[in-house]
Amino acid sequence: MTAAATTTPFSATTTTIFSPTTKTKYTLFTFKPTTRKQLTTTLYASRRPSYVPNHISDPNYVRIFDTTLRDGEQSPGATMTTKEKLDIARQLAKLGVDIIEAGFPASSEADLEAVKLIAIEVGNPSGEMGQKVLAGKVAGEVGGEVGLAGNGEGVHVPVICGLARCNKNDIDKAWEAVKYAKYPRIHTFIATSEIHMQYKLKMSKEQVVEKARSMVAYARSLGCNDVEFSPEDAGRSEREFLYEILGEVIKAGATTLNIPDTVGYNWPREFGQLIADIKANTPGIENVIISTHCQNDLGLSTANTLEGAYSGARQLECTINGIGERAGNASLEEVVMTIKCKGELLGGLYTGINTRHIVMASKMVEEYSGLMVQPHKAIVGANAFAHESGIHQDGMLKNRNTYEIMSPEDIGLFRSNESGLTLGKLSGRHALKSKLFELGYDIDGKELNDIFWRFKSVAEMKKVITDDDLVALVSDEVFQPQIFWKFGDVQVTCGSLGLSTATVKLIDSDGKEHIACSVGTGPVDAAYKAVDLIVKAPVKLLEYSMSAVTAGIDAIASTRVVIDAENDQTTTLATGQKVVRTYSGTGASMDIVISSVRAYVGAINKMLGLKKKSN
Amino acid sequence: MTAAATTTPFSATTTTIFSPTTKTKYTLFTFKPTTRKQLTTTLYASRRPSYVPNHISDPNYVRIFDTTLRDGEQSPGATMTTKEKLDIARQLAKLGVDIIEAGFPASSEADLEAVKLIAIEVGNPSGEMGQKVLAGKVAGEVGGEVGLAGNGEGVHVPVICGLARCNKNDIDKAWEAVKYAKYPRIHTFIATSEIHMQYKLKMSKEQVVEKARSMVAYARSLGCNDVEFSPEDAGRSEREFLYEILGEVIKAGATTLNIPDTVGYNWPREFGQLIADIKANTPGIENVIISTHCQNDLGLSTANTLEGAYSGARQLECTINGIGERAGNASLEEVVMTIKCKGELLGGLYTGINTRHIVMASKMVEEYSGLMVQPHKAIVGANAFAHESGIHQDGMLKNRNTYEIMSPEDIGLFRSNESGLTLGKLSGRHALKSKLFELGYDIDGKELNDIFWRFKSVAEMKKVITDDDLVALVSDEVFQPQIFWKFGDVQVTCGSLGLSTATVKLIDSDGKEHIACSVGTGPVDAAYKAVDLIVKAPVKLLEYSMSAVTAGIDAIASTRVVIDAENDQTTTLATGQKVVRTYSGTGASMDIVISSVRAYVGAINKMLGLKKKSN
Repeated sequence: MTAAATTTPFSATTTTIFSPTTKTKYTLFTFKPTTRKQLTTTLYASRRPSYVPNHISDPNYVRIFDTTLRDGEQSPGATMTTKEKLDIARQLAKLGVDIIEAGFPASSEADLEAVKLIAIEVGNPSGEMGQKVLAGKVAGEVGGEVGLAGNGEGVHVPVICGLARCNKNDIDKAWEAVKYAKYPRIHTFIATSEIHMQYKLKMSKEQVVEKARSMVAYARSLGCNDVEFSPEDAGRSEREFLYEILGEVIKAGATTLNIPDTVGYNWPREFGQLIADIKANTPGIENVIISTHCQNDLGLSTANTLEGAYSGARQLECTINGIGERAGNASLEEVVMTIKCKGELLGGLYTGINTRHIVMASKMVEEYSGLMVQPHKAIVGANAFAHESGIHQDGMLKNRNTYEIMSPEDIGLFRSNESGLTLGKLSGRHALKSKLFELGYDIDGKELNDIFWRFKSVAEMKKVITDDDLVALVSDEVFQPQIFWKFGDVQVTCGSLGLSTATVKLIDSDGKEHIACSVGTGPVDAAYKAVDLIVKAPVKLLEYSMSAVTAGIDAIASTRVVIDAENDQTTTLATGQKVVRTYSGTGASMDIVISSVRAYVGAINKMLGLKKKSN
Repeated sequence: MTAAATTTPFSATTTTIFSPTTKTKYTLFTFKPTTRKQLTTTLYASRRPSYVPNHISDPNYVRIFDTTLRDGEQSPGATMTTKEKLDIARQLAKLGVDIIEAGFPASSEADLEAVKLIAIEVGNPSGEMGQKVLAGKVAGEVGGEVGLAGNGEGVHVPVICGLARCNKNDIDKAWEAVKYAKYPRIHTFIATSEIHMQYKLKMSKEQVVEKARSMVAYARSLGCNDVEFSPEDAGRSEREFLYEILGEVIKAGATTLNIPDTVGYNWPREFGQLIADIKANTPGIENVIISTHCQNDLGLSTANTLEGAYSGARQLECTINGIGERAGNASLEEVVMTIKCKGELLGGLYTGINTRHIVMASKMVEEYSGLMVQPHKAIVGANAFAHESGIHQDGMLKNRNTYEIMSPEDIGLFRSNESGLTLGKLSGRHALKSKLFELGYDIDGKELNDIFWRFKSVAEMKKVITDDDLVALVSDEVFQPQIFWKFGDVQVTCGSLGLSTATVKLIDSDGKEHIACSVGTGPVDAAYKAVDLIVKAPVKLLEYSMSAVTAGIDAIASTRVVIDAENDQTTTLATGQKVVRTYSGTGASMDIVISSVRAYVGAINKMLGLKKKSN
């Protein structure tokens, strides 16, 4: 940062924003239009040159762009809280993702706020953000808390990207959210296929080109030097028109051109040809990065993405576990592991991903999105390395490579029998902390304490505490939203001989106990009705599922529910559709009724948290 | 059949076999080696020419080979009973699958029996089997029941295939199982990659070629005119060696050459090149069919399979829902729908699949295998057509094709609001039967009656009975194994304040009631312990999961459990590994404890059924 930045005269309005992870209140500045450009140029543009690590200039380096928090989060039931998004963004930074698409700021206030926090906390190196906020302070405000920000010492700093349709409001909001990152990016898009232009946009080709050109220029005019443009439904767009519009947006300042197969209709050779044609025919393409974004409707997204890379794309958009609208997106772990295994055949391509963080990222996204992966999911499914499990293995496999193309450790999968520590009921807090660290969780303070007491109570009943048991407890204690209602007690009587009756005790945020009882068609129905009597928020249960986390009849049960609130706020999808937000919650216990109530209370807390924030 | 067949002199030993679906006892004949060849040639070979429907001679016709019942069924926890396999085989015939790999007869007695029944009942046109069994009867036995067999009027008759390693015992067993089909096939395989030959087989190249050549010849010598050969781990085999061994087995009589990417290590261009090279360099290849078999370890199985077809393969091996060992196989629905959507780009390729039966096949395989598909699974996942659901849709989508490349009806997906009938508590048996038929279930007699009463009891408690509710009830009543123990009653008391206690009543096959009670760490633990006290079979609970089948707190809960029996019989995988069989069970109820007990009793019944058969 140059000294000039702090002395430039400008006027600004301030807002404060609270980070649930670092418990820090930030004061943010919205600069008046006339001075904004001058300031942002000084504040951000001067940093851009430093964002070209050596490997990036290597033509064989492939950037990984993760859109789990945008395309993934907008799947039905996958709504995440700001804290959850921050956790995932941090994990993505650990994983070494080059660009994090953190959200679609114009879709809702909550989304804007989440992207902003990710930009501040994950989009900056440790300490540097404090300086930046202070720089603001000098000009706009005196006093207030400035905490530790940034994403930790020595951790890679990803580009933070916000999505925007081709209009000023969307782009303003995206910039408002991402500009606090060290490397901010605006990603804007407009449809270019006949069918979309005619039926959705009701615009002519000329109007679409003009809109794209002017909006890319507008994004640049705000001071954002990293602008990505996507011609939506490129897979079904007329080839010549694509070259034209892409050429125009390059002239207007776009730095990355993303080619989406929006409806997942291409097959690999076809998509590869599309990328090759764009590379060969678009004026100015040599100065920008070509990117892919492949939907999975025919199950071909990973292969299409790889063909894109083979044909010249150097940024690949994907999501953890392949989640996303409909059949989802190319899955990061499949794309990255194929490039790792077959990079040579792909022309020497490589990525900057630290694959050992894949399993933890996968589990975290499963937890927070509520979208479970199937047992036979490639790389991260429960059966993917099942022949390794020892149960189903005799001495016939003399060499591990006979049926294994990568080792579980490559993706960060360690098994109980491989890690040294075994926990029992006499294990102390330190052993628990070490074990959790081994499993990829860096947990301390009150959270460690809470898990420790839960662990103790389980250890009283079970002889062996497995890694999976611990993961379930972490999920129940740590991966939880802000608490409005806390689980107290539950007691039920049920069965085929009579009506189920449940009594529930919840504790509110002031520590006051509330008790209610209800009858229902089953124990969960009865207990949930009792919770409703206490919470008094109109809620509809959309999904309910449960699984035992380990084998054995005394296993911990993990429950997941998805609810929506009647008349709740909506959010806007990239497709232009408005959707009602839904909230998921998880709970774990050795008793399925308790675990069900914990999950339900968790989902209600998540809903109340988001509701409160958007008011 | 020629008259000669019934008059040929031979001696034979007979065995009887009972079909749980048609309730028919068949008498089967094992002919003595010296006369077997002569007979089978007359009985089966004479039929072969009729198995070349016109489209098959079209070079653009792609055969679909389904291995759900072999590769899929050998996944952890996916064990199916004979009745379940028959149901699936019938559905595959409806779907128009060209070849059904019905099992691996040498792996266990139960598998051999299942393949045999599928050969008889699904591998023959309606009525004809009666004739065949009668033909046998003339020579070997007088009297006994001969029922209606074959797979129904006007239904396509698939080839029935059995897997065998390259040894006489495996091939004998495969032939013993498939020879009753109108179009029987033996599929034999041996590994050809350096790593497999060296570490698994401990054989030289010359030995491997000799083994393959002689065993294909042996299969032909039994009278099997349709022999498929697979060089296992072809994806990692030396190219020149592949041409050599494939050329040799063609000379020995192989009619289909299947090229497996056993460890899922190829990427599409690489696998396509492998197929193209084999096509260009293998002597005699023009007289046989090339086939693909792609594992999904990198998430590329569908794309690899399509590239195989593009490069000349005319048989594609796949499974419903893509299930299979580790990350599974190419998924039939993805391969077929891509060929349907993009056949023209693939050079005019097409299949004989009736895609409208895909959804039912997918649901049936999910039910029976216990391998759930993820919500974002392409084609058949719950979210695959989610933007169509009406809940998440506003008026913005003026044209359905903007975000949809195929219609849900194409794969047999109909929604409540689309189908005419709505059921309520006053609906009669006939309305229920019509509705179930609409959903793809052709149910009658006692099964219809049982579902009707379950339907009535649910209708008493729920205002609207959705399609999903009905599917859950069908799954609970119809998709159930033979009954040894029947659910009677359960009553539990549980909660966070004290130990859970359950009382369970089961009814044995003689109608006698058994009651037991137990305490446990939760209601399910307590109830399962009470069941164990009654059943007295050593069982270990491996997996437990539950989900609500519809939104709303009064939804039906569907539970699935997987158990194994201590010291139970094992089966042999194609990899040579021995695995312990595991059994899944499902149950549905509005009370999660009842649904849990039903599922557990179902799994125990499945286990007892298979145990009994193998004794």
